[in-house]
Amino acid sequence: MENAHRTVADHTPTASFADQFRRARALSEALAAPLSDADATIQSMEDASPAKWHLAHTTWFFETFLLRDRLAGYTLYDEQFPFLFNSYYEAEGARIARFSRGMLSRPTLDDVLGYRRAVSEAMEPLLDRADCADLIALGIAHEQQHQELLLTDIKHALFQNPLGPAMFAPVVRARQAQAAGWFEHPGGIALIGHDGDGFAFDNEAPRHRVLLEPFALSRGLITNRDWQAFIDDGGYRNAVLWLSDGWAWVQGEGIEAPLYWHGEEQFTHAGWQVRDPDAPVTHISYFEADAFASWAGHRLPTEFEWEAIAAAGDPAEGDQVDQAAPILPRATTSLFGSCWQWTRSAYLPYPRFRPAEGAVGEYNGKFMSGQFVLKGASCATARGHSRASYRNFFYPHQRWQFTGLRLAKDI
Amino acid sequence: MENAHRTVADHTPTASFADQFRRARALSEALAAPLSDADATIQSMEDASPAKWHLAHTTWFFETFLLRDRLAGYTLYDEQFPFLFNSYYEAEGARIARFSRGMLSRPTLDDVLGYRRAVSEAMEPLLDRADCADLIALGIAHEQQHQELLLTDIKHALFQNPLGPAMFAPVVRARQAQAAGWFEHPGGIALIGHDGDGFAFDNEAPRHRVLLEPFALSRGLITNRDWQAFIDDGGYRNAVLWLSDGWAWVQGEGIEAPLYWHGEEQFTHAGWQVRDPDAPVTHISYFEADAFASWAGHRLPTEFEWEAIAAAGDPAEGDQVDQAAPILPRATTSLFGSCWQWTRSAYLPYPRFRPAEGAVGEYNGKFMSGQFVLKGASCATARGHSRASYRNFFYPHQRWQFTGLRLAKDI
Amino acid sequence: MENAHRTVADHTPTASFADQFRRARALSEALAAPLSDADATIQSMEDASPAKWHLAHTTWFFETFLLRDRLAGYTLYDEQFPFLFNSYYEAEGARIARFSRGMLSRPTLDDVLGYRRAVSEAMEPLLDRADCADLIALGIAHEQQHQELLLTDIKHALFQNPLGPAMFAPVVRARQAQAAGWFEHPGGIALIGHDGDGFAFDNEAPRHRVLLEPFALSRGLITNRDWQAFIDDGGYRNAVLWLSDGWAWVQGEGIEAPLYWHGEEQFTHAGWQVRDPDAPVTHISYFEADAFASWAGHRLPTEFEWEAIAAAGDPAEGDQVDQAAPILPRATTSLFGSCWQWTRSAYLPYPRFRPAEGAVGEYNGKFMSGQFVLKGASCATARGHSRASYRNFFYPHQRWQFTGLRLAKDI
Amino acid sequence: MENAHRTVADHTPTASFADQFRRARALSEALAAPLSDADATIQSMEDASPAKWHLAHTTWFFETFLLRDRLAGYTLYDEQFPFLFNSYYEAEGARIARFSRGMLSRPTLDDVLGYRRAVSEAMEPLLDRADCADLIALGIAHEQQHQELLLTDIKHALFQNPLGPAMFAPVVRARQAQAAGWFEHPGGIALIGHDGDGFAFDNEAPRHRVLLEPFALSRGLITNRDWQAFIDDGGYRNAVLWLSDGWAWVQGEGIEAPLYWHGEEQFTHAGWQVRDPDAPVTHISYFEADAFASWAGHRLPTEFEWEAIAAAGDPAEGDQVDQAAPILPRATTSLFGSCWQWTRSAYLPYPRFRPAEGAVGEYNGKFMSGQFVLKGASCATARGHSRASYRNFFYPHQRWQFTGLRLAKDI
Ligand SMILES: [Fe+3]
Ligand SMILES: [Fe+3]
Ligand SMILES: [Fe+3]
Ligand SMILES: [Fe+3]
Repeated sequence: MENAHRTVADHTPTASFADQFRRARALSEALAAPLSDADATIQSMEDASPAKWHLAHTTWFFETFLLRDRLAGYTLYDEQFPFLFNSYYEAEGARIARFSRGMLSRPTLDDVLGYRRAVSEAMEPLLDRADCADLIALGIAHEQQHQELLLTDIKHALFQNPLGPAMFAPVVRARQAQAAGWFEHPGGIALIGHDGDGFAFDNEAPRHRVLLEPFALSRGLITNRDWQAFIDDGGYRNAVLWLSDGWAWVQGEGIEAPLYWHGEEQFTHAGWQVRDPDAPVTHISYFEADAFASWAGHRLPTEFEWEAIAAAGDPAEGDQVDQAAPILPRATTSLFGSCWQWTRSAYLPYPRFRPAEGAVGEYNGKFMSGQFVLKGASCATARGHSRASYRNFFYPHQRWQFTGLRLAKDI
Repeated sequence: MENAHRTVADHTPTASFADQFRRARALSEALAAPLSDADATIQSMEDASPAKWHLAHTTWFFETFLLRDRLAGYTLYDEQFPFLFNSYYEAEGARIARFSRGMLSRPTLDDVLGYRRAVSEAMEPLLDRADCADLIALGIAHEQQHQELLLTDIKHALFQNPLGPAMFAPVVRARQAQAAGWFEHPGGIALIGHDGDGFAFDNEAPRHRVLLEPFALSRGLITNRDWQAFIDDGGYRNAVLWLSDGWAWVQGEGIEAPLYWHGEEQFTHAGWQVRDPDAPVTHISYFEADAFASWAGHRLPTEFEWEAIAAAGDPAEGDQVDQAAPILPRATTSLFGSCWQWTRSAYLPYPRFRPAEGAVGEYNGKFMSGQFVLKGASCATARGHSRASYRNFFYPHQRWQFTGLRLAKDI
Repeated sequence: MENAHRTVADHTPTASFADQFRRARALSEALAAPLSDADATIQSMEDASPAKWHLAHTTWFFETFLLRDRLAGYTLYDEQFPFLFNSYYEAEGARIARFSRGMLSRPTLDDVLGYRRAVSEAMEPLLDRADCADLIALGIAHEQQHQELLLTDIKHALFQNPLGPAMFAPVVRARQAQAAGWFEHPGGIALIGHDGDGFAFDNEAPRHRVLLEPFALSRGLITNRDWQAFIDDGGYRNAVLWLSDGWAWVQGEGIEAPLYWHGEEQFTHAGWQVRDPDAPVTHISYFEADAFASWAGHRLPTEFEWEAIAAAGDPAEGDQVDQAAPILPRATTSLFGSCWQWTRSAYLPYPRFRPAEGAVGEYNGKFMSGQFVLKGASCATARGHSRASYRNFFYPHQRWQFTGLRLAKDI
Repeated sequence: MENAHRTVADHTPTASFADQFRRARALSEALAAPLSDADATIQSMEDASPAKWHLAHTTWFFETFLLRDRLAGYTLYDEQFPFLFNSYYEAEGARIARFSRGMLSRPTLDDVLGYRRAVSEAMEPLLDRADCADLIALGIAHEQQHQELLLTDIKHALFQNPLGPAMFAPVVRARQAQAAGWFEHPGGIALIGHDGDGFAFDNEAPRHRVLLEPFALSRGLITNRDWQAFIDDGGYRNAVLWLSDGWAWVQGEGIEAPLYWHGEEQFTHAGWQVRDPDAPVTHISYFEADAFASWAGHRLPTEFEWEAIAAAGDPAEGDQVDQAAPILPRATTSLFGSCWQWTRSAYLPYPRFRPAEGAVGEYNGKFMSGQFVLKGASCATARGHSRASYRNFFYPHQRWQFTGLRLAKDI
């Protein structure tokens, strides 16, 4: 969700606000610590960016919208960096074409870490300023988004290497029971969208009423075992299960399994590992999620159904990122964590949605075509980043994120 | 909307039912009458099909689902035709890859017209049978959809010819006033979807409640004059107005105006003609419609808003097809006719939507990703085909249909 | 060899010169006679052109370079035709992009035949004029080249049709013995290139000396039976046999047999027919010819070796086109006819080659990169068109012509 | 010329043979010394390879064909390296697809340098063994080829970086006069190919007789100033000057100048530098060289003409690589050095050419289609690597090598 930098203005800085900033900055660096300069330079596809770029781009955000715009007398760390590390804020000037990000062997990873230190230090005087709080909160959320992308992008890059390199040592984690059964909901009017308490992106606003029909949402995520049954039953070869665009994708790309699966193993941040059948399936496209739901005789939930159930949940639960460590989803009883969950809702503006003004908000509604909403949080999401109203979104063929599903049905 | 063959079972044959069938069959042939065998053979792009193929495919539908399945002792007209003229009903067996439709110089147009006559005649005994009524109604609606595609596909094919050939003589039509002002709606619960009276595709069902916020919908369609103002103001060069995918499309394809515009002229079924500034703009993509709405300070309506207003209108009004004649949109005061109108609603299933069973309904939900809903009817739609609950749908970059827009705003 | 319009000026008109013109014009029309307007309109790939276009383009040549330039008071038949039917003579003005030739449903085949009649008649007064003889000879040779392309292009187009339509009725032809053994040549200085007697394209000049090492050239062409042995021995799966670019082509395109082969049959102008194992293999690429030669332990000849042997042969022998009839190669004892024979010589200029002047000669050397020379003549070549010094040329992956091979070896 | 690993067996080791090995190995490392791990990892296009890969691949060659095959008891340094660093020797087993070479962030540059040291040391006992001499000579020549590719590939990679990084400091070099006038040759029989004294690739054999017509070859290389005149005269916009494939390339790629030109500057290993008008033009394609020659009223030489003149020259003269230092061509009076010179000769086998046996020679003739021969040596060629009979070859559109031209004419 490189795409969503948007805030609403109603939150207030807390006592720990400066700490939140420092922790977010430190976490990015910890996540990148196992990477060499070369690891941090490569880019495996257009959808991805080099780790180095994520580290610099999040820094550019603070330097541009806080230090440059709000700190008197600040001088840019390097005049060429805005050109290299701006992403898509067209009001902020020329950008390099995204495809060439993988050619940035210079500046080095050390240069970028130096840039990070300088900007983080320069930020200190602003951390307590009330007039900067909104932008800092946005910058932290932005940094957390790029932490998740850093993790999924480097996983994809290392996956290209025939040596199957690991960036973390594998760990054995306690098996956890997958939840069973269904959450039931009687239907009626639900309040959807951010309730105005704390930070949120502006695509979560305004809060509004939505009519729901009675439905149920599965308590458990679909597991690797479930997915294997789908494969064994010929799921990838049965056109009737698939959306038309999905079937063209399966045929055109020769898709036969989730991304990163090979035999009994899957590629992880700790290299090739045997799959846990009880863990949630991840790295599936919307097309695959939808076909699975058809095969299972159910359907995907809407984003509104998911949110109506999750409103009562705790978004800080579940498998999420607390520190630099192996990233691997496992069975969970929480609605949050382990994997982002595809919904059948297209990513569209809420009624009376208004984009924010200026460069920060320049692209607020820009991505509202062709993508689907995902809810929850994944094992690669910084804990504290997500919430019930959070709207993640990707194209229906994309699957390098930790994407999975839970089912819904009419009742 | 080659995509939507689906019915609900609640309509009953009327006295004129057989006549409807005969009229629909005759109209297809009248529309194709100006075409040579060669005209009817060529295919200008993958999205389009040859005229000959439309004529045969609609016939194949009646032959397969009525004659073959319901008429004792019927023998196929030609055993190879199902292979050639099936479109995507996978249960019906192998198809030729769609791209090669433009290579079908054989069978000839005369062969295909012979096929049409034979099947139409063989259908006569079934036209009054109550057990066939649903399928015949579906077949008629299907034929009407392909009439519109025949017209838009051949327009695109003739447009490729540097000679700019005409298939109809140009006519001078009385200028009509474009409607002004707004329809206002107080919001609240609206009933959306087909009300069960008469034929409808199954994507229009089930009828259900939707919550609307107060809004207004423009009475008039955006005109060529309005569009020229958008161009003159740099609309195609201002990234801020565009969705991200739309901007990539504009840049990648070098888009600078609606399809078929050149200087002061536009390509029509009557060759190159000077544009009427008061006529509705057509042949625009969703991306263009959305950018225009942003430029105008408004937005596109949702499909629900449009339907809530149109429920009171008469779908048989406006510029629609009554007979073979030049196809050209003009100013209108009707919600229907002249052009299909982009909405900001993604094409998705209604709550509790259930696909029909069997080959006819095989693909009911297949197209529910990546497309947007259009409402109304166009100057190339057979009058009587559309209704308020009708859901047309295309990808956001497509614009070879008669697509235009009317604006909406929050109130 | 759409590519080679070039002449040398030293030939003189013969008594039958006007007849040659009339016969060539009539043959084109006879070859196209089995085609409908739609058949003559379709274009199956960028390398090919519609039959209608060939018929018109050859006419445009006479109209432009003879009637327009040499006949006082001549008025163009249609002012738009030069734009449609010019191929690549850039000095002659704008052309339509080649890919859209398949969209020319207008003018109709009848229109084009009318154009042909008018130009052929208008040519009559020029047929005896000595100052026009060179250009007329060139125009005839040009028309003959396009006759061969018309035949190979329409074969490719009809092949796309799942019905496998035939444009000629199949005929049973007397089996002929394939020649055995080798022509031997002692090496030494050979005179290569046109000897100045009669018409030739300018790429055949100037005649010059070439040093040859002792070699042998196989008397027989490689047959379908030989080719089947190559396939059975895994020839298409053995990388060692292939040029690097050839192996990439085989892998990328999934090549497993000559073009038009399927099971025991091959597609012909008379539809799908069982292959004659004694007939020469045709429709193979240079890559395939070269791989076969490696597999056979021999090599392809150079164009100079081939010409040194063929200088003593009769270019009017063998399977070539005399009239409109089924086109199918058979075993032969002639060096000419049945199929064009790949040589290992790149198509490059002879020493002291000079391109002709003006639009006619505009492109004389334009094609001298990336292509290989073929010698002989095929079953689709008008008898009388070829000669020992004739240089046909195609890219190494192309195989929609009647292309085959004979082997060579060092002695 | 990644493509040419082939030797003839008639050379004998010299006293300094072991030194040649050590110098070649040291030069590779010196050339790579300015590169970081990240610099050495990136790959800017399919034609290029990462610097790290070149360093490892040349080492793999010695490890495989010498240590593994000839040194009793040798154990592979790393069992996975043959898989990673084999290039195309199919007999040697599976390779990684070439496109993913740019994803090898592991092994690190340090790992690769360790590999180099281990293999170089292990080679010591073999350096004096007569039975290894041929293979070692081949390995040295192979390493030198990859030195040139390392330099041209990293130049292309750094060029992608908007920062325009330099890997060497710029140096001011003494201006040198460009030679004027023509070498004249009376024609007759020339002996072409390696004369059997010292090492050569097998594509240089066998030595054979070629007939030449009288010709002249320009003493000087075409300069940047000459090329600017070509541009100023509209050379890139005048279709008449270009080969057909060349014109399609110019139009399709939007070519307007040599690669690396921008304004008055050009990109070099020392970053962006003002061009020296007297220096030879480099980084041009065959298409550009041929168009320039046409514009100049002359032509390119054949490889035979070039060699006939150069036989008397000293291949160790001119701008070539002696040590790690900035790579920049300058005016020269030598036939060798500064840039490889396009000839109009297609890269084809000499009469009676026989490929070598085994994996080393597996691909001897594999590249003999579609490429053109270049003669001489460039400023990126290790001095001592080239000779008069040397045949470099590239596709006519490629221009990331130091490629230039000298003219020829008939006399
Ligand atoms: Fe960002
Ligand atoms: Fe249909
Ligand atoms: Fe021609
Ligand atoms: Fe190599």
